[in-house]
Amino acid sequence: MHDTTDPVANLQALVACPSLTPAEGGALALLESMLVPLGFSVERPVFATEGTPDVENLYARHGRNGPNLMYAGHTDVVPPGRETAWTHPPFAGTVANGELFGRGAVDMKGSIACFVSALARLEAEGRLERGSVSLVITGDEEGPSINGTSRLLEWATDRGERFDAALVGEPSNRETLGDMIKIGRRGSISGRVTVEGVQGHVAYPHLADNPIPGLLALLSGLIATPLDEGTDSFPASNLEVTTIDVGNPSTNVIPASVSAGFNIRFCDVWDGETIATEIERRLAAAAEGITGRGERGALSYRLDWVGRISPVFLTRDDRLVETLAGAVERTLERTPELSTTGGTSDARFIKDYCPVVEFGLVGQTMHKVDERVPLSDLEALTRVYMDFIVHWFA
Amino acid sequence: MHDTTDPVANLQALVACPSLTPAEGGALALLESMLVPLGFSVERPVFATEGTPDVENLYARHGRNGPNLMYAGHTDVVPPGRETAWTHPPFAGTVANGELFGRGAVDMKGSIACFVSALARLEAEGRLERGSVSLVITGDEEGPSINGTSRLLEWATDRGERFDAALVGEPSNRETLGDMIKIGRRGSISGRVTVEGVQGHVAYPHLADNPIPGLLALLSGLIATPLDEGTDSFPASNLEVTTIDVGNPSTNVIPASVSAGFNIRFCDVWDGETIATEIERRLAAAAEGITGRGERGALSYRLDWVGRISPVFLTRDDRLVETLAGAVERTLERTPELSTTGGTSDARFIKDYCPVVEFGLVGQTMHKVDERVPLSDLEALTRVYMDFIVHWFA
Ligand SMILES: [Zn+2]
Ligand SMILES: [Zn+2]
Repeated sequence: MHDTTDPVANLQALVACPSLTPAEGGALALLESMLVPLGFSVERPVFATEGTPDVENLYARHGRNGPNLMYAGHTDVVPPGRETAWTHPPFAGTVANGELFGRGAVDMKGSIACFVSALARLEAEGRLERGSVSLVITGDEEGPSINGTSRLLEWATDRGERFDAALVGEPSNRETLGDMIKIGRRGSISGRVTVEGVQGHVAYPHLADNPIPGLLALLSGLIATPLDEGTDSFPASNLEVTTIDVGNPSTNVIPASVSAGFNIRFCDVWDGETIATEIERRLAAAAEGITGRGERGALSYRLDWVGRISPVFLTRDDRLVETLAGAVERTLERTPELSTTGGTSDARFIKDYCPVVEFGLVGQTMHKVDERVPLSDLEALTRVYMDFIVHWFA
Repeated sequence: MHDTTDPVANLQALVACPSLTPAEGGALALLESMLVPLGFSVERPVFATEGTPDVENLYARHGRNGPNLMYAGHTDVVPPGRETAWTHPPFAGTVANGELFGRGAVDMKGSIACFVSALARLEAEGRLERGSVSLVITGDEEGPSINGTSRLLEWATDRGERFDAALVGEPSNRETLGDMIKIGRRGSISGRVTVEGVQGHVAYPHLADNPIPGLLALLSGLIATPLDEGTDSFPASNLEVTTIDVGNPSTNVIPASVSAGFNIRFCDVWDGETIATEIERRLAAAAEGITGRGERGALSYRLDWVGRISPVFLTRDDRLVETLAGAVERTLERTPELSTTGGTSDARFIKDYCPVVEFGLVGQTMHKVDERVPLSDLEALTRVYMDFIVHWFA
């Protein structure tokens, strides 16, 4: 085993594991072998759902007393894309010009490497005596996220595990290490609206019923007015129409149906139910204005909600937020923005168990070719994590 | 050879030829063998274009003097669809309950069968002495129509052939034989409008540029106002949006581009150039209202015209129209509507050579499973054609 106090060595070893979602790729086994010498008890539960591949997960705990601080993350990575486009191979962990190249370098094997390094240094100094530290690590964050963090937390809770606060290691910084901590997230809801018409020849429009103008009116009604202006804690809610699909190759045929998909990121003005009601209200109002063919007073349409709703959440544990912000300020001499922007993360599951904050590396190269991290960021993040752990237990 | 004065026997023989576009299927050879005994000289030019299959055609002429009356049609048929769904096999020509079943029964082997029968009866009675009758028959009307009527007319004209009037045998009647004669057609033009945006994650809309709202505004601008109210001879112009395509499967991704197809059937208020200019004007006006991202003052979009424009036309040969309407009235005791409705036909090519009218069978079962024609309609159409030929030459 390499020296686990070195975050660079930790990250090189992790990057070498080809853990493309949902493949474990040796990454969790490696993590286990790094944690056991530090005094962690480690378990590797595998969860399965019919029709999806098995997912390996890892739960590790140091200490048996409270309070229990959770670190949550994932070892799975997204595919490297065109490998020949990389300056250095995506699973080699090459260091060049002071940067470490590799898929997962920032999202988020880099953060795990730093957190393990922080633990190893504190353990070596005898400073991991109070309470417990638990690692909740999944191999399915970039995938469907069904057999990952969500089930791992259920599994742990069923065994009597309790958590007092959580730190998620996702890349939270926009441009510079320390510029942003995430303390909540907008909710997310996706839907699809479909209008059925009657297929026919363009030369005989009276024998057909083109569904497209109706859909245009519905979508215009959806996007005409902003949903809100945001709140003190959250940016404004936003609706994006993500697709419209007919797939009619014939220029002389009026199509039988058309559907459009949309996604809403909503702030704490709404919850999943009220935002859905608002969308239903807007569609119904837009449909009212359209006198369809035949006897219908308003346009007929179908609205389907797609996938599950991610609720909006805001971490209200001031001590947790201040401890993390303080660690950033003390270590990096930078005041982080406390933000609720950005995409969903597994924090949406954790928030039901304990207060959760997110701080990791800088996200700019994540999911891209030449994903990479400055070695200086790895050392700095390790020191932020050390400071955070020490002050949270203090 | 069967008795060609019988339209039912003619049609059964033609239906038995599997002449799916562009296959000749024996149909033109059969037609030649029916026409030669009636005194026609017959030629079978084959036209080819790189990248498309060869198309067989037929040109037959009875007599060498003017005036020359053209009958135009096609022996090719559209595919039968699911053959097991047919009550009687699509290429058997089965007669049941007074109807003849088969692909092409009304579109338009039935009309050819009747016209040949009319010629055979007139020839037998010695009433085909004045002027000439020419048959312009293609095997590519239901296909791309590139190596069919259009080239056959060029070919004939190059050889010195001249035409004084033309009758197209497409199914022109809506519900009952004799309810409609076609004396012109609206023009047709198709286009595609594309808006390019910038792909991105729905959680970071400020880093992306969703092209869909812009397209919605352009399409709304296109369809907001009717193009015209029609004229004495033509129904109003009509624009149908036929497709919108994004094809984005990810609910959390803002797509990079979106495009929509549309088709316009335009009346004689417009020609191909002025209607195109009006569409360009409407799109530009709709784009003006949208302040896009970045420095653009108006939304950027691309407009592509698709395929060739079919010009609008109206037959102004009163004697031709009145002779055909009179034949319908005398034979069927019904006054046909003189219409310019409906889809394009090869009349759009013929109108550049001579005045053209269209009259055939009832279109209701064309292109459908169980395409069929009442035997009584075959006899009645034969008598309409006889009356028309006699009076046109009178
Ligand atoms: Zn991640
Ligand atoms: Zn036809």
